[in-house]
Amino acid sequence: MYEMTIRFQPDGKSCLYEQIYGHIKKEIREGRLLAGERLPSTRFLAEYLQVARSTVDSAYSQLVAEGYITSRPYRGYYVCSMEEMFGPEALCRETASKAAAFPETLSGNEESAAVSDEAAWEFDFSPYEIDMSGFPLSVWKKITKKILTEERGDLFLRGEAQGDLDLRLSISRYLHSSRGVNCTPEQIIVGAGNDYLLLLLEKILGRHVRIAMENPTYLRSYRIFRSFAYDIVTVEMDEYGMKADSLGEQGIQAVYVMPSHQFPTGIVMPIRRRLELLKWAAGGADRYVIEDDYDSEFRFHGKPIPALQSSDESGKVIYLGSFSKAIAPAIRVSFMVLPAPLLQKYRQDCGFYSCTVSRIDQRILNEFIRDGYFERHLNKMRKIYRDKHDLLLEELAPFRRKFAVSGENAGLHLLLTGRGFLGEDELIQRAAQNGVKVYGLAEGMTAGQPDRTGVLLGFGGLSQEAIREGVGRLRKAWEI
Amino acid sequence: MYEMTIRFQPDGKSCLYEQIYGHIKKEIREGRLLAGERLPSTRFLAEYLQVARSTVDSAYSQLVAEGYITSRPYRGYYVCSMEEMFGPEALCRETASKAAAFPETLSGNEESAAVSDEAAWEFDFSPYEIDMSGFPLSVWKKITKKILTEERGDLFLRGEAQGDLDLRLSISRYLHSSRGVNCTPEQIIVGAGNDYLLLLLEKILGRHVRIAMENPTYLRSYRIFRSFAYDIVTVEMDEYGMKADSLGEQGIQAVYVMPSHQFPTGIVMPIRRRLELLKWAAGGADRYVIEDDYDSEFRFHGKPIPALQSSDESGKVIYLGSFSKAIAPAIRVSFMVLPAPLLQKYRQDCGFYSCTVSRIDQRILNEFIRDGYFERHLNKMRKIYRDKHDLLLEELAPFRRKFAVSGENAGLHLLLTGRGFLGEDELIQRAAQNGVKVYGLAEGMTAGQPDRTGVLLGFGGLSQEAIREGVGRLRKAWEI
Repeated sequence: MYEMTIRFQPDGKSCLYEQIYGHIKKEIREGRLLAGERLPSTRFLAEYLQVARSTVDSAYSQLVAEGYITSRPYRGYYVCSMEEMFGPEALCRETASKAAAFPETLSGNEESAAVSDEAAWEFDFSPYEIDMSGFPLSVWKKITKKILTEERGDLFLRGEAQGDLDLRLSISRYLHSSRGVNCTPEQIIVGAGNDYLLLLLEKILGRHVRIAMENPTYLRSYRIFRSFAYDIVTVEMDEYGMKADSLGEQGIQAVYVMPSHQFPTGIVMPIRRRLELLKWAAGGADRYVIEDDYDSEFRFHGKPIPALQSSDESGKVIYLGSFSKAIAPAIRVSFMVLPAPLLQKYRQDCGFYSCTVSRIDQRILNEFIRDGYFERHLNKMRKIYRDKHDLLLEELAPFRRKFAVSGENAGLHLLLTGRGFLGEDELIQRAAQNGVKVYGLAEGMTAGQPDRTGVLLGFGGLSQEAIREGVGRLRKAWEI
Repeated sequence: MYEMTIRFQPDGKSCLYEQIYGHIKKEIREGRLLAGERLPSTRFLAEYLQVARSTVDSAYSQLVAEGYITSRPYRGYYVCSMEEMFGPEALCRETASKAAAFPETLSGNEESAAVSDEAAWEFDFSPYEIDMSGFPLSVWKKITKKILTEERGDLFLRGEAQGDLDLRLSISRYLHSSRGVNCTPEQIIVGAGNDYLLLLLEKILGRHVRIAMENPTYLRSYRIFRSFAYDIVTVEMDEYGMKADSLGEQGIQAVYVMPSHQFPTGIVMPIRRRLELLKWAAGGADRYVIEDDYDSEFRFHGKPIPALQSSDESGKVIYLGSFSKAIAPAIRVSFMVLPAPLLQKYRQDCGFYSCTVSRIDQRILNEFIRDGYFERHLNKMRKIYRDKHDLLLEELAPFRRKFAVSGENAGLHLLLTGRGFLGEDELIQRAAQNGVKVYGLAEGMTAGQPDRTGVLLGFGGLSQEAIREGVGRLRKAWEI
């Protein structure tokens, strides 16, 4: 039994749950708690520390979610293996394959087109839609009006290339407090959407880049890298996400990952994999990890899992974030945090590219964040989405006989992985015949995996009633 | 003497001036008026047609400005040579040189920085500044408020990749009526600034492009093409702009020009050169002309000169326009008109790139154009800028002893070309010592031309008083 020594800090700055969580995490990271060691049971630790059992439960859940510890049914909690990270390189297994069988037939515009197609479906479980009913339009209008009224003559002039300093300051504060991201406003580049920021990143990274992507991955990003004529290597995933052990041998310079809630699998990358990626990146001067912090704002149980960037001590992570899901896709504001060496390159080679976001919009967004509206909005939406998420999970209970349900607890979609009773196309088609649109795993597939059948169910844009009725239709369609 | 036969159309659809102008232009283009032929004098034609002499003057001036006819002092008006265009290719002279001596020392951000540097100068003759005092802020606010109030739930969702159809429709109508551009809304791509649209264009044209640019040219565009690692060939200019006769032999695929008011020289490219460019482009399947319709909104005397695109009958012109100068740099809306073959390529390879302009901004801009505010604003600004332009020209009269003044009648800057009494750096430095910022020709220089001394005087952002006093300071500084 491991002896817990937790010093209570009565300064009120961090709650008990965070102290327990933080302490165990530190012990693991510093090697004092070793892989395979069993943690005290939650009941024992709660009694020992004289705290509520739910407090310990929460701390353990968070550690599980981040991959520091694992739970074995009926046996308890165990520390995950970290030491591989710092030992000799594992033998490189050939798990990566070149992207070859990418479905070229998909039309170029399906996400944008979704808006106009919508009418054709009674229930659209789109993983891209969000719930705009909670948007604080009156606040947005108030701020807009105020800014246009205050306008001091410079509002309509060209602003700074990286974005207005005020906005970058607000973003850096938000990133620090909510995502654990360590950065100064100088490292932030504001741009009109992730697509644009990736175009800019291409100019920074250069033209001949071999990039690794998860398989399956986010189709849009895949297409963008393909339009760069980057040499794309797709890497197989297991339940923890991208297998990092084969990266070293393949001359890869960049890795694109979504550690917070991978699209489409919904996997939250555990800390061990994150550290493996960072270790790989530290092994070469030109290696970088592109972290698309996809869906990170919406984590429904436990505290948010910090960004991969927060663990980066060698300036190896390029962090990409966006307000598309947290506020609205239409406002078109994303941001990129560059590590120091790339920031220098950006300034030298790309500093002349004008900022793509209107200054008026930048100022509106800045006030929205600065004055606390954004945080309130996020909290509100987190609750709305959590209710939808929980409802969908519940409604899907009968489906577990025929599917594995994964990707839960974060983001705006779940994944049903078939056990082969029906093919993906058949599932989609039968749903369609019942007025329901579901999305195949092929949506994010970069290389053919014929043995894998998966259906994405997004819930962001659907009301609770629609979720209930839509799932009912699916039961009928799939004879559940 | 050429016999004029002009049928008067009493339908009131086009004025006398336009009928005269249109008729002569047609006669020249269709080969009925030949190069070198003398036109009737304005006095004679006015009497003959029973119209005011000023009407004929205006028509002739417009034809001169567009390069159809030329005026020889004390001798009259003559038709310019067109037939070379359709004859055998002229011998290719080696007028183009590779860009080599580009000043690398210029900092990347001088345009953006200009805003904050401003305070250091009493009079800044920046060619990039515009006059925001005439901006109809109350109208903009009214439209913004209306749109946020009307919002029908889709305003905050992701829009079409090319931009909202309504806005593209308004732009296509504006382009047709004001710039003579022939295009459908389907050919238009709306984007957040020219820089972004060029990034997109790179994905359409491909990575290995040999591109010809004028020398001198617009530094920002030069830098952008350089960041693409395009093979940039700079082509010498004469008084008519880029010499097109050497393009054919050099394996050039794209030509970047600013025919309406070249930056920095202010040259309006005459029709003959335009046709030469189009002919060159027609000579190869992959050849295109990129027309940056720079400063086109502000032509102060005569009617606006149509865009190069309006003469394009083979789908060879990529047209770039922007609202940065006509409305405000901060609103970040530009647009690109693609010819059919490239449009197909865009849809296939780049259709998935999300639009970079917020839908709210798109809708505001659309109403601003659709409801006639834009045209009214342009007319108002044209008058404001014309007054400044005329004043600056007048104040510069004493400078003509030591400089040639060019680039007049259009755009927001003039060019003083030195006759060698002082070097460019010396001129700039002496001006600075007197609190005046002027811009050297090196601002747009792509290859060293040590024998050429030029100073740009932008007037857009200066008041009439500031122009007067600033020029006074320059007289003192340069001992005029």
